[in-house]
Amino acid sequence: MQNRVAQLTAIQKIEMADAPMPKAGPGEVVVKTEYCGICGSDMHFYTHGSIGKKVAPFPFILGHECSGYVAELGEGVTTLKVGDRVALEPGVPCGRCELCREGLYNLCPDVRFMAAPPFDGALQNYLAHPADLCFRLPDSMTMQEGAMLEPLAVGMHAAKRGGVTMGQSVCILGSGTIGIMTLLACKALGATRIVVSDLIESRLESAKAFGADVVVNPREQDLEAAVMELTGGAGCDVVFETAGSPHTMVDTWKYVRRGGVITLVGNITADVPYSFLEISRKEVDIRPVFRYRNLYPMLIEAVASGKIDLSGIRPREFPFEESDAAFRYTANNAQEVIKTLIRVSE
Amino acid sequence: MQNRVAQLTAIQKIEMADAPMPKAGPGEVVVKTEYCGICGSDMHFYTHGSIGKKVAPFPFILGHECSGYVAELGEGVTTLKVGDRVALEPGVPCGRCELCREGLYNLCPDVRFMAAPPFDGALQNYLAHPADLCFRLPDSMTMQEGAMLEPLAVGMHAAKRGGVTMGQSVCILGSGTIGIMTLLACKALGATRIVVSDLIESRLESAKAFGADVVVNPREQDLEAAVMELTGGAGCDVVFETAGSPHTMVDTWKYVRRGGVITLVGNITADVPYSFLEISRKEVDIRPVFRYRNLYPMLIEAVASGKIDLSGIRPREFPFEESDAAFRYTANNAQEVIKTLIRVSE
Amino acid sequence: MQNRVAQLTAIQKIEMADAPMPKAGPGEVVVKTEYCGICGSDMHFYTHGSIGKKVAPFPFILGHECSGYVAELGEGVTTLKVGDRVALEPGVPCGRCELCREGLYNLCPDVRFMAAPPFDGALQNYLAHPADLCFRLPDSMTMQEGAMLEPLAVGMHAAKRGGVTMGQSVCILGSGTIGIMTLLACKALGATRIVVSDLIESRLESAKAFGADVVVNPREQDLEAAVMELTGGAGCDVVFETAGSPHTMVDTWKYVRRGGVITLVGNITADVPYSFLEISRKEVDIRPVFRYRNLYPMLIEAVASGKIDLSGIRPREFPFEESDAAFRYTANNAQEVIKTLIRVSE
Amino acid sequence: MQNRVAQLTAIQKIEMADAPMPKAGPGEVVVKTEYCGICGSDMHFYTHGSIGKKVAPFPFILGHECSGYVAELGEGVTTLKVGDRVALEPGVPCGRCELCREGLYNLCPDVRFMAAPPFDGALQNYLAHPADLCFRLPDSMTMQEGAMLEPLAVGMHAAKRGGVTMGQSVCILGSGTIGIMTLLACKALGATRIVVSDLIESRLESAKAFGADVVVNPREQDLEAAVMELTGGAGCDVVFETAGSPHTMVDTWKYVRRGGVITLVGNITADVPYSFLEISRKEVDIRPVFRYRNLYPMLIEAVASGKIDLSGIRPREFPFEESDAAFRYTANNAQEVIKTLIRVSE
Repeated sequence: MQNRVAQLTAIQKIEMADAPMPKAGPGEVVVKTEYCGICGSDMHFYTHGSIGKKVAPFPFILGHECSGYVAELGEGVTTLKVGDRVALEPGVPCGRCELCREGLYNLCPDVRFMAAPPFDGALQNYLAHPADLCFRLPDSMTMQEGAMLEPLAVGMHAAKRGGVTMGQSVCILGSGTIGIMTLLACKALGATRIVVSDLIESRLESAKAFGADVVVNPREQDLEAAVMELTGGAGCDVVFETAGSPHTMVDTWKYVRRGGVITLVGNITADVPYSFLEISRKEVDIRPVFRYRNLYPMLIEAVASGKIDLSGIRPREFPFEESDAAFRYTANNAQEVIKTLIRVSE
Repeated sequence: MQNRVAQLTAIQKIEMADAPMPKAGPGEVVVKTEYCGICGSDMHFYTHGSIGKKVAPFPFILGHECSGYVAELGEGVTTLKVGDRVALEPGVPCGRCELCREGLYNLCPDVRFMAAPPFDGALQNYLAHPADLCFRLPDSMTMQEGAMLEPLAVGMHAAKRGGVTMGQSVCILGSGTIGIMTLLACKALGATRIVVSDLIESRLESAKAFGADVVVNPREQDLEAAVMELTGGAGCDVVFETAGSPHTMVDTWKYVRRGGVITLVGNITADVPYSFLEISRKEVDIRPVFRYRNLYPMLIEAVASGKIDLSGIRPREFPFEESDAAFRYTANNAQEVIKTLIRVSE
Repeated sequence: MQNRVAQLTAIQKIEMADAPMPKAGPGEVVVKTEYCGICGSDMHFYTHGSIGKKVAPFPFILGHECSGYVAELGEGVTTLKVGDRVALEPGVPCGRCELCREGLYNLCPDVRFMAAPPFDGALQNYLAHPADLCFRLPDSMTMQEGAMLEPLAVGMHAAKRGGVTMGQSVCILGSGTIGIMTLLACKALGATRIVVSDLIESRLESAKAFGADVVVNPREQDLEAAVMELTGGAGCDVVFETAGSPHTMVDTWKYVRRGGVITLVGNITADVPYSFLEISRKEVDIRPVFRYRNLYPMLIEAVASGKIDLSGIRPREFPFEESDAAFRYTANNAQEVIKTLIRVSE
Repeated sequence: MQNRVAQLTAIQKIEMADAPMPKAGPGEVVVKTEYCGICGSDMHFYTHGSIGKKVAPFPFILGHECSGYVAELGEGVTTLKVGDRVALEPGVPCGRCELCREGLYNLCPDVRFMAAPPFDGALQNYLAHPADLCFRLPDSMTMQEGAMLEPLAVGMHAAKRGGVTMGQSVCILGSGTIGIMTLLACKALGATRIVVSDLIESRLESAKAFGADVVVNPREQDLEAAVMELTGGAGCDVVFETAGSPHTMVDTWKYVRRGGVITLVGNITADVPYSFLEISRKEVDIRPVFRYRNLYPMLIEAVASGKIDLSGIRPREFPFEESDAAFRYTANNAQEVIKTLIRVSE
């Protein structure tokens, strides 16, 4: 048996290659990958070769949103069996540091995260991964849904960090993939009044289709006025910045109620001239999110039970051998595509 | 009987005047004021006549840090008796709005707060105030300590919002009155490693005297290096901005550990060019504070039991008739004086 | 204009009477009552004349689950207008004690609660009530639903105290009115695996109709086995005792997972021989509930948006003049009727 | 080099024996044990050979409260060096299950805990233990204090589960070792009014010496009256059952305030006829504790900084070879001795 990988060999160049088969170490399984999604961070490595100080060491394997079949059991694995359909949580924390022990394992300084250099990603036919981070999918879930649990986890972690609960009003700035995932998570947690803003009309249409109550293109409509109308002048309970833009971040305080929360989901690389006095007056927290924690079992329950419906995502699929095309397509259609999936198995 | 007040009649001008005696309404008491502290916000009204959009309507009575004796009981008051020594919590929330009902009464939009226009402050011989916001002082507490509970409440609210608990490391930026009060609160809640920074040497000496483990003048020493040395390279559990300065705020992310908290105590009127990406990477909350809530009973316990020792404050006292001098002195000695108290009774 | 009331004049005897019209005091409104539900506590006063040490002072007006129209505005009321359709939160806390100030107003020692002696209840044509405890119903909600918010609040408070969240498993012991309301609340908060037990088949059928995944009659089936099958041997995240029976309480520890929660909703008047060691081993909290707090706005959002569907309750309605018959019917059909409503207006 | 152990070979019989030297596996260190305390559970195995269903498999090594010197580093250990003085957290969780990942590692079903059959304890000259569960002691802490961190952790976990914070009132039922440790923890977290009850006068004297404000022997004085006097009739914020007795547990609801907490620390093997209605009326939680989590670093800070003073414990010390005498002494002097330590090294 032979492993095969799609690897970034240069900026904007993904090439297929043969590779050695992985072995399942103690507590690990080998997974035969079925689907792998392309994330914004994958795209950033593809187009720039790096993210901030993190440089991709060519050749480098991208991808961290994946599902597959258990193909081999390592020593001591009893919770899975060969053939199980699983979704893979891509970050492997040490399990022993103070942050891990406190349950904040997403902040583990020694986490090994797929496709975060120097660790290779999931665009491989076969992967070794800890069994306890491979979550069995019920029959009612598709393998595509399994691969999309990862971006959904980002949205759910944001919604939970924001404290979203039944009956709340939320404002989501940005309606890209993560904005949509945040919207799905907020609805599932009970948000009843949801405003979504974006500059791109097709994205606003998506937000509407996924259940936003109000969508606003700030080029054409006053977002603050829309928020105040929806909330009787109080402002939203939670505001999410998902666009990763200084322009949206700078105005977040305008949309939030006294005692509310601003949740920072997007990565904003530039400095933002922020009016901290405005959040002091309202005692509003700013809570950023870094990946997610403790969410896969809950999300599988939520999707399998229909409480979260991913069927509207309609991912664009590419065969594994056309991985380069998949990246190119995603780069060229950033405004329309919510999710690109690569079918790794063949 | 006659009431007498010290009122701001023009910028930098406090004048004494006679005034009508207050009456205790239902649920209220009349308090004969004993001590009233001068707060930074009082000083701001004194020197500028306004704070932001809040304009003092001359004549305007300042002061909201006060203690006194119960002099008259209104209808239905059963928890106090004439002669009781009390500290006054200066904000009177409506008790009926959604925020009050949730326990977040400091955010009540209809709060009536002493010396926040249009509401007069406490520099009066006699005041009417709700009985439930007049807290009896045990014999072991002085009336001066009673008056200083208010700024202490700001520090304690900050420490609690920051989640300070036993064994933590904290970094306090700014060692003015509120910095010192935050320091006392953090120590009382169990912080065991405390760094305080300020540009003024006398203030750093105060911080040291009040129990700071390390004091840093950033003009002379690298604060980040000091924090990292104290915390073994991890950063502090909680960072407090108490200086109200964009220059200290902008660097807060450097001093805080992964998963830690930045607590914003000072009022920062200018925009701050903030690197939100840095707090995203560490999933660090920014939590501002607005006044305080539910703290007077706890603080009285803490001071009366010796868990918080205010005796080191050594406030500078002025007689009531010299209120103008008290303000002038405070303006001219901002760097040395921790607290000025006016002895309102005579 | 004339007020009319249904009052308990002796055990098992409700009589109609004329009464003076109420006046709206400051901050109050007069409400023309439309619907009033009959609660288990009302039934207990009806059949026994008392609940524990609380004795009904004949004549005594029962009822605390009600909706109606605003008929008159007291001084200072600006948030409602005459004709508004409202649901009434029946407990009026003092708003000033330490528990109220902390947001735990349901525990206010001075709360005035409808139909809790010495305070009369809502079976009156007209009632004066604080405006801030009258919650406007959107057009999409019926007045019957408005009256049923009160028992729903009990279920939601229980679910929230239990910490129910997305993807959890819950076990509800007892499928009477409060069991059903708890079930609706748990589903709305995201519970995906729900077991309900009861000794009465018709109630189990109701539970099934309202969305229970598994229903168990412990006389015929082993409940612990059913819980373990549903949860893969782990036990439920949250167990609710809603039957108010020592027999169900005594076994609660068997159904709950390590680190889970037992929520005590029913009032259990007899002592229960409890194996505390069993909850120590699993570090399981027992959290009782007393009424509810801060829930009406959220529940109106939840019902109006369809996140909670009360339409399956199908309450049995009686005209006001037949109040005595309504109580008699409820007493005689305790096993079948989920909710009896009295149409107070005519 | 030779290892030597003290092992339980029969009921009430500890015998010394030679044993193979342990090896430090990957991530482990070998510790040369210095002190090991005798816990109530050790005593129970000594006198009965079992605790409930847990049977000691003779020969069995007891002891789980220990400190020592790092003697050997396993592969990959970088945070410790040979010669470091350390306290050992005795439970080794799996680090991978759902409870571990959520930070509730004390509830890990696969935890390996010293001296809990089938796992041997610490009464050995040399032990292999995970490096991340060996916590370096600062020079200011003695090795005896290091060994006493374990029972202190039980008290601190109880205090934290109870939510003890600055200014609170607490009632501690039972003044044995764990009662005293709970008292120290409560004081450190800021409790200002502490009542302790016990039937044994010498223990009440200890409680007084460690800072209890009021001590009560229920045979001679009414505990409820004492609690009400101390708390102005409100009841205590937190009540701790540390005696492990049905007789103390049954009355816990009498001493707690509305909305307060009953923390169950002792193991109560018999059923308790409990009046759950009484905690329902006050909405009081019952929160049991099982061991502790995430506390060693914090406790080392607390003891090293003087916030918790263990010097009053004055443990009774025995040399290793007299381990059997140490157990016999402890059995015969249960009422006076707070802690027996065995000096394992020599």
